[in-house]
Amino acid sequence: MSRQDRFLKACRKQDVDCTPIWLMRQAGRYLREYRDVRQSHSFLEMCKTPELAVEVTLQPIRRFDLDAAIIFSDILLPLECMGIGLEFSDGEGPVLHNPLRTAEDVERMRAIDPETDLSYVLKALEMARTELNGIVPLIGFAGAPFTLASYAIEGGGSRNYIETKKMMYTEPASFHLLMEKLTDMVIAYLNAQVRHGAQAVQVFDSWVGTLSSTDYETFVLPHMKRLLASLEPSAPHIHFALGVSHMLKLVGSAGADVVGIDWRTPLDEAWKKMGLKKAVQGNLDPALLFGSSQHLVASVHDILERAGNRNGHVFNLGHGIFPATPIDNVSLLIKSVHSGSARP
Amino acid sequence: MSRQDRFLKACRKQDVDCTPIWLMRQAGRYLREYRDVRQSHSFLEMCKTPELAVEVTLQPIRRFDLDAAIIFSDILLPLECMGIGLEFSDGEGPVLHNPLRTAEDVERMRAIDPETDLSYVLKALEMARTELNGIVPLIGFAGAPFTLASYAIEGGGSRNYIETKKMMYTEPASFHLLMEKLTDMVIAYLNAQVRHGAQAVQVFDSWVGTLSSTDYETFVLPHMKRLLASLEPSAPHIHFALGVSHMLKLVGSAGADVVGIDWRTPLDEAWKKMGLKKAVQGNLDPALLFGSSQHLVASVHDILERAGNRNGHVFNLGHGIFPATPIDNVSLLIKSVHSGSARP
Repeated sequence: MSRQDRFLKACRKQDVDCTPIWLMRQAGRYLREYRDVRQSHSFLEMCKTPELAVEVTLQPIRRFDLDAAIIFSDILLPLECMGIGLEFSDGEGPVLHNPLRTAEDVERMRAIDPETDLSYVLKALEMARTELNGIVPLIGFAGAPFTLASYAIEGGGSRNYIETKKMMYTEPASFHLLMEKLTDMVIAYLNAQVRHGAQAVQVFDSWVGTLSSTDYETFVLPHMKRLLASLEPSAPHIHFALGVSHMLKLVGSAGADVVGIDWRTPLDEAWKKMGLKKAVQGNLDPALLFGSSQHLVASVHDILERAGNRNGHVFNLGHGIFPATPIDNVSLLIKSVHSGSARP
Repeated sequence: MSRQDRFLKACRKQDVDCTPIWLMRQAGRYLREYRDVRQSHSFLEMCKTPELAVEVTLQPIRRFDLDAAIIFSDILLPLECMGIGLEFSDGEGPVLHNPLRTAEDVERMRAIDPETDLSYVLKALEMARTELNGIVPLIGFAGAPFTLASYAIEGGGSRNYIETKKMMYTEPASFHLLMEKLTDMVIAYLNAQVRHGAQAVQVFDSWVGTLSSTDYETFVLPHMKRLLASLEPSAPHIHFALGVSHMLKLVGSAGADVVGIDWRTPLDEAWKKMGLKKAVQGNLDPALLFGSSQHLVASVHDILERAGNRNGHVFNLGHGIFPATPIDNVSLLIKSVHSGSARP
């Protein structure tokens, strides 16, 4: 066995020769070769030019012994197609023009056809798949409806999500309609990604941790259940939500094959809470890559021990890799995971 | 019984006539009369002028049927006395000049004498206590060592706390020394506050939720235990940490009389995790104050039902009240808590 199928086998809880690893945001700014490309192209230009997207998708695979590639893209691109102006300004994060605030705003949102509206992503997937030539599997992804809704309503990142919650609490029907439209979009988008070459798909719910478990159950879970049940079953579904230690059981019940967990809860505790029938992905604090190599290796071993070589563990960070991460520690991390988890 | 002693009795798990309530940041920008004062004085000026601090401390007590006053101040003031330049710029949040990065920076930090260095806070407490004249008890407060350390190291607010964790992982001895110095400071400061009139004290650990439970146990818990064990026992100790659903049991074990919980975990679940011997404070999502009055009242009743009129519940928000909060909903909240929890 090799990089070719370790990742997909772990997603399916099958036997592996060692624990596979990939890193959220592995195609990103911590790589010199990524910064080189970025220097002469805007972020959106890179997303929308398949040749550039494929180049940065492949960069970490060339450099490291990673077990999966993830297509370079951004979760906010489909919002633009739905009618919400999108801009990335350096250092400021994304800005969404004409944010949604009223029932009419929500009703006006267009449905999308990924084959035409997001053809550049699908094209990039096809090209990346060809270039990878079976070396490692290719992951597609999308934002989860709540996280996309929060961007669309707040008009960008947020600390307290007041406008989002205001719509939830005062106009629940509008909020649910928005979630439905976004769910429809994500289903269509991810299934198109699978048709065009994605061998697994990940849904990122980065900001849903702001909700109480009660609100999650009312406003998010039904949509996530429908979403995950409507995805093409041939490609494993990974569901990653940040800061949801208070509702791991609910998140686990949404129905993904693999549940990504952040660094806060120890892996074995999180796994037990969601039920051992799930596969799990995680969960090293990305800040540990700034620590000493000794401390990093000890932290990797702690996670591997908690996983206990049980089938169904994909190693990953508990959050995206930070731009300033020292490259040598990334190599050390990957080597430690593979050697520390080699099955007898 | 009345506003006079409901709050302190609940902290001590004694019988009350109804559940007491106060609001984190109740002396704040959501009040027109606060904004009036703020218009002609800077934030630091308000903190450092006892007459102004007392005025805004009393404003919410005059307007609402709240069961406790909390002194108007800021958790970062003692850092200034320890040698870290402090500035509040409008809309930007606090900026700390010469942030700590090296062992030498940590060693250079001065110990403080609250009686001289923070005499304006102690004076404000005395004056507020006199003005309150027993109508409601007065709460003093301080930042918890980890939260203060993160501000001192990052130089302000942070999203990922990379510099803080870098020091933890690469220079653990320096990090522990910093935590020790901050713990000494908080003990001296809070005990001085009690001597000068505070009848209860709250420790705010706003940013510790960024840590895994393993790191909390190693780098924070021992200091919090020493801190809470060293406080004047006559005034109840409230320990509030945000985003710590993954380690409520550990936080509960630190030793406070009352543990504040954020809005994420349902009150009964959180209470059980920490053990029913503790008193608890919380836990309405402050964003619910932007919802319909019907939804707000239903949410209050849900929390009261989960508390089940058990002794030892102080009602509060799960986080500070937001500046744009509609005043009428604040009155409604307080009324709903009192009437919905009146003991037979």
